[in-house]
This record gives sequence, structure tokens and C-alpha cells, in this order.
Amino acid sequence: MKIGMSHGAGGEVMQNLISDIILKNIKNKRVNGGVGLDDLDDGASIPLGDLEIVLSTDGHTVDPLFFPGGDIGKLSIAGTVNDIAVMGAKPLAITNGMVIREGFPADDLETIVKSMDAVCQETGVSIITGDTKVMEQGKLDEMIITTTGIGVVNKGEIKRDSSLKVGDKIILSGSVGDHGMALMSYREGFGFDTDLQSDVAPIWEIVEKALAIGGVTSMKDPTRGGLANALNEIANKSGVGLLVEEDKIPLKEPVIAVSEMLGIDPYEVANEGKVIIGVEKELADETLSAIRKTRYGAQAQIIGEVTEDNHVILETSLGGKRILEAPIADPVPRVC
Amino acid sequence: MKIGMSHGAGGEVMQNLISDIILKNIKNKRVNGGVGLDDLDDGASIPLGDLEIVLSTDGHTVDPLFFPGGDIGKLSIAGTVNDIAVMGAKPLAITNGMVIREGFPADDLETIVKSMDAVCQETGVSIITGDTKVMEQGKLDEMIITTTGIGVVNKGEIKRDSSLKVGDKIILSGSVGDHGMALMSYREGFGFDTDLQSDVAPIWEIVEKALAIGGVTSMKDPTRGGLANALNEIANKSGVGLLVEEDKIPLKEPVIAVSEMLGIDPYEVANEGKVIIGVEKELADETLSAIRKTRYGAQAQIIGEVTEDNHVILETSLGGKRILEAPIADPVPRVC
Ligand SMILES: Nc1ncnc2c1ncn2[C@@H]1O[C@H](COP(=O)(O)OP(=O)(O)OP(=O)(O)O)[C@@H](O)[C@H]1O
Ligand SMILES: Nc1ncnc2c1ncn2[C@@H]1O[C@H](COP(=O)(O)OP(=O)(O)OP(=O)(O)O)[C@@H](O)[C@H]1O
Ligand SMILES: [Mg+2]
Ligand SMILES: [Mg+2]
Ligand SMILES: [Mg+2]
Ligand SMILES: [Mg+2]
Ligand SMILES: [Mg+2]
Ligand SMILES: [Mg+2]
Repeated sequence: MKIGMSHGAGGEVMQNLISDIILKNIKNKRVNGGVGLDDLDDGASIPLGDLEIVLSTDGHTVDPLFFPGGDIGKLSIAGTVNDIAVMGAKPLAITNGMVIREGFPADDLETIVKSMDAVCQETGVSIITGDTKVMEQGKLDEMIITTTGIGVVNKGEIKRDSSLKVGDKIILSGSVGDHGMALMSYREGFGFDTDLQSDVAPIWEIVEKALAIGGVTSMKDPTRGGLANALNEIANKSGVGLLVEEDKIPLKEPVIAVSEMLGIDPYEVANEGKVIIGVEKELADETLSAIRKTRYGAQAQIIGEVTEDNHVILETSLGGKRILEAPIADPVPRVC
Repeated sequence: MKIGMSHGAGGEVMQNLISDIILKNIKNKRVNGGVGLDDLDDGASIPLGDLEIVLSTDGHTVDPLFFPGGDIGKLSIAGTVNDIAVMGAKPLAITNGMVIREGFPADDLETIVKSMDAVCQETGVSIITGDTKVMEQGKLDEMIITTTGIGVVNKGEIKRDSSLKVGDKIILSGSVGDHGMALMSYREGFGFDTDLQSDVAPIWEIVEKALAIGGVTSMKDPTRGGLANALNEIANKSGVGLLVEEDKIPLKEPVIAVSEMLGIDPYEVANEGKVIIGVEKELADETLSAIRKTRYGAQAQIIGEVTEDNHVILETSLGGKRILEAPIADPVPRVC
């Protein structure tokens, strides 16, 4: 077998690769009984004293590096902050591994570092260590940034992507499809002159406010594979079903337009500034109000609820129902 | 300015890039008063309760992926274990960020993952989370692995690369130049049929045994830029000089042969299984004995001592002295 693009595209094909080649061949998968490799959560944890240390890593290969709404610098910090946040941990610090193509303009590198710094300042995280490698012309397309984040949470308060309970409400923090569609339409030549922008943003503030209400059961950031992948993952791992009111899922006009034009499902493409939150029914409205007051949560919606079923069902306002499947692979490559 | 190969080659040129473009543009550089970005140590730290959490990251772009003595999998785990170890921390876990070229053979990926696993088992560390991305044919040369390690040390017991004291002895754990020269000679076409092998190995056992004696003041792994770079770094950062007996520096016969043939200084090329340890004079012999009993420390030597000077001086057995300068850049590219 040879590695294909879909092995890096956040769907079923990637999951199989990770199970068959990575999990199978690694013996030591966790530390101190924390969240480990085979939990396949957004990150992992190491219990230490009264705290649990949370770690998460992502390599960023986005093409192009500068896209409508952001760049690889903003993406790398926000993406890592978000994976720490959805574990329920406060992000503290990030490590910055850069691999750069020989001949890359130093000015662009500086712009990217400044973007990283801006998100760090916004979220109160620090870049504490890093690494720089250079590859010859022709051996690497521009640059790759691999960020690893560390966060902390009180022992026992970690949030897993497998702990939805029947009856919980599902909150989505805003519109979906923006990031994948913005990249796709830019690549198709629509350029920066469009209303379509990536949603790339750190969602820690949303999570922090939601956690403070006390009813959060489970969270996930719907990145590669989009809403469809993330909803199926949290439902499957929790052993539950979801009933989602399709009309409640926020979708921007230009996202709908481009998705129809290109024949790409906006539910299957990556988001980079959104979070799906499962909340106890009684605290759902209060949690929603708190989220709506945050910088990136104004459009948040309760989109559905957790059922005893074992599928993710979309229901239209006319009562039509269909199963929302997880994609085999994200239809837009190299988005993050 | 454009990025050149020397910007990723572990010498003065890389240090300037990091200062001018990275440090200058990042505001939040440390957490809780721990070791931070502008300390430019082998990793960073976050004090938490009675402990200090140590983090370090390295991107691995070694060419070729499989080389005499190891492969990128072994290199990525050993390299990260070693940076955590030289901070005086016990390595606990590693994150595994992989970026793979489309078309890469799945069998090779499996071999690499097994190599990672072997070093993890040897050192008792776990791989707890990771990420997988794929880039199109022609956009990436084979694969890049970025590993981030986490370790712990009691508060106040962290070892810095800037804390040598005048009078300390300098221990080198074994021969230098093996990794860089093995790669170079392999690339020159000498193939695997040579005595020259990379030294890639985890040095945590050496460090653990040395720390137990109680006299360690400072450590560093002499990777890119080799012994010359590492000795100059620890001396400069500590504000001291070093007097090194050149005859005590272990050098293997084939390393000498190849370095003469290719005109490359074995002190300036990368090692991947060595450590330089500063030790209080009184405990130097005991520390050396302990190190010599470890798997990778049998050839360890006391190579010199810390002086009030501000240079690294090499002294031959005939009494000739010369200054050992830090290289502008490691003469062998893409070694780690
Ligand atoms: N190369 C790898 N080695 C070890 N674990 C991996 C590797 N690739 C992925 N994983 C694990 O698989 C799971 C899914 O990874 P994935 O990257 O999809 O999560 P994510 O970071 O939340 O999503 P995204 O990368 O789209 O932001 C995670 O638990 C991750 O730790
Ligand atoms: N892109 C970067 N962002 C932030 N810090 C960086 C970056 N590149 C290097 N650094 C910092 O510069 C210092 C030197 O890095 P370097 O990679 O040489 O250390 P090392 O990992 O010990 O050596 P090697 O990479 O050869 O194994 C470290 O403190 C590192 O944190
Ligand atoms: Mg995630
Ligand atoms: Mg992620
Ligand atoms: Mg490094
Ligand atoms: Mg180091
Ligand atoms: Mg290193
Ligand atoms: Mg990921």
C-alpha cells in the first residue's frame, strides 16, 4: 500500500491508517492512567498531583500559507489552542517546530511569526521553545509548522469526546464550512475579493465561559472532515445518537453559494474556529447565552440533542430526516 | 533576505535568524517564571506545584530516512528524549506529528513507527498523541516527523546550559562526529558497507546515573554544529572558558578517515547519542565511573575543565593550544 492524500484528510481512511499502522505498533500509549493514544481524543493527558496536564499536537501544511481570513501562523496557534481547550484545559504554552523551504522570504516568515504572536497574546499563551529546520528548494512546498500545546485542568475535570449522555443538548458555536470553502474558492481563483473568509480563531474564551456554567459533558472542534465527522465521532465514541435540526446549523450565504457551485458539502469541510459542545439539558440555555457573549460565539445555536439511537440524524423543518454520515475523507485537501 | 540552508544548520546563522525574526516578534515567552524562549536552552519549563514540567520539540528532516545505524523514527524519539534529559528531567511522553508525502510506502511507515516504539520501550516513554498530514507528490521529500517531549523534574533541580562553574570538569559521554560523518559518507556513496554508523541513541540512562551522584552543574547534547557548537554555547552562556585536552576527545578511526577524505571537521558535525556534562571537580571521577557502566557511556572521558577564560581552548598532548570556534553552520545539511 502507498499513502494517499485521503490518509491525511481526517476521515475514515485516516482513522484506519492510524489504527493499522500507528496504534498497532506502539506499546506504551499512556502515562499515569491519563488519556492516551488509543483514546484518539483531541489530545492526551498526564495526571500529576491534583492536576491533569493536557498535550496536543498538529502539523500545519495549509496551502496557500496566506488565505482569506488568516495565515499558517494564526492557524497553527489557534488550532492547537482549540484542541487543548476542547479537552477542558486552560492552554498555557506552545512549542513551535518550523520546517522552511530554502529561498523562503524572511519577510513572510516575520509576518507569520507576528500572526502567531497575535493569537498568543489574545489567548494568554506563551511560545516557550521551538525548532527550525530548512529543506532544499524543490524538497518542500513553502513551510510546515508543527505546534504542540500544553494546558492544565483540575484532576477529574477533563472533558472527553466520548462522554455525551442521552438528553444532552448540542451547542454549535457558529457557522460551519467557512474555512474549507474559503480555501477552496481562493484556490479556484476567486482570490481575496470575496465575502468568504476562514473562521480561524481561538475558541478558548467560548469554552471557558461554557465550562463556568457547569453543564458541559463533551466537546470537539470540527476541523478536518467538518461538522459531519465531528458529530459522528462524538456520537460513536459516546455510544449514542444525535438528532440535529438542520435549520439551526448556521451557514453563511457565500458558503452555500460556493458549496453549490463546486459541489462540495459544507458539513464535510474543515472549520478552524468552531466548537461543538454537549451540555446537560437543564443548563443548555444558560450556557448558550454565555457563549453568545463571547467574541467568536455570537452566532451559537443549540442545534440538537443526544438520543438513544446510534446515528446522527438531520431533521429539516418540514420533518424530513436523513442520516448524516462521516466522510471517507475531507473533500478539500491541505486545509490545515 | 531569503532563508538559506545555513538558517537551519545549528550555528551562528541560525541563532541570528531565531533572535532577529522569532524572539523579536513574540511577546509571551515563558510561563510561571520557568525557562522560556529567550533562554534558548534545549527546552523550556513550566513550574507547577513542587514540580517543573519540561518541554522540548524538534522537527526531523533527515535525508535519507534510513541511514547506517538508524532511521528517522529512532532519531525523532532519541533526539527528543535527549533534549528533555539534558534539562535534568525524566522523559515521560512524546507527541508524534507526521507529515508524509503522497505515495510513500506504508511498509516504510510501519518500519519507522516500529523504530519509534523500540526507543520508547527502551527509555520508558509513551507516545500519547499525534497528528498525520499528507502532502502531494513533488511537494515534500519523503516525510517529516516533529516530536515534542514532556518530562518532569523536582522544582529547583532543573539543569541549565548556562550554569557551568569555574573548576568544574567536563565529561563527554563518547566519540564525536559519528552521526554527521555516517550520513555524509553514506550520501557520498559509501553505502551501508562501512564501519561508520550513526550514534543515534537515547542518553537518558547516562544522565540519570550522572544526576544520582549529585555533582552535575550543566548539560547539553552536541547535535547540529557538533561538539564545537555545544562547547561554545555552554561556555558562553555560563560566562566561562573551557580548557579541553584534545587527546581525550574520543574519535573513531573511520570518522577520522572520512573527515580527512571529505575535508569536514568532525567536531562541527552532529551527534545524536552523546551528552556533554559539567560536573563539580570533587565528584567528576565518581560520575565518570557511573556513566561508563551505562549502555551508551562506556567510552566516556573527562575531556577538560572550566576556566576563567572566555574561549574554548583545545590543548594537544604536545602542549599546542588553539581556540575552538563555534561553526557558522553545520557543514553537513539535513542530518536530523
Ligand atoms: N501520527 C500519529 N501518531 C500518533 N497518533 C496520531 C497520529 N495521527 C493522529 N493521531 C491521533 O489520532 C487522533 C485523531 O487525530 P486528528 O489529527 O484527526 O485530531 P485533531 O487534531 O483533533 O484534528 P485536526 O488534525 O483535523 O485538527 C488523535 O487522538 C491523535 O492523537
Ligand atoms: N522556530 C523556533 N521558534 C521558537 N524557538 C526556536 C525556534 N527554533 C529554535 N528555537 C529555539 O532556539 C534554541 C536552539 O534550538 P536548537 O534546535 O538548536 O536546539 P536543540 O534542539 O537542542 O538542537 P537540535 O535541533 O540540533 O537537536 C532552542 O532554545 C529553541 O527553543
Ligand atoms: Mg480536534
Ligand atoms: Mg487539531
Ligand atoms: Mg532543535
Ligand atoms: Mg539540544
Ligand atoms: Mg534537539
Ligand atoms: Mg490533528
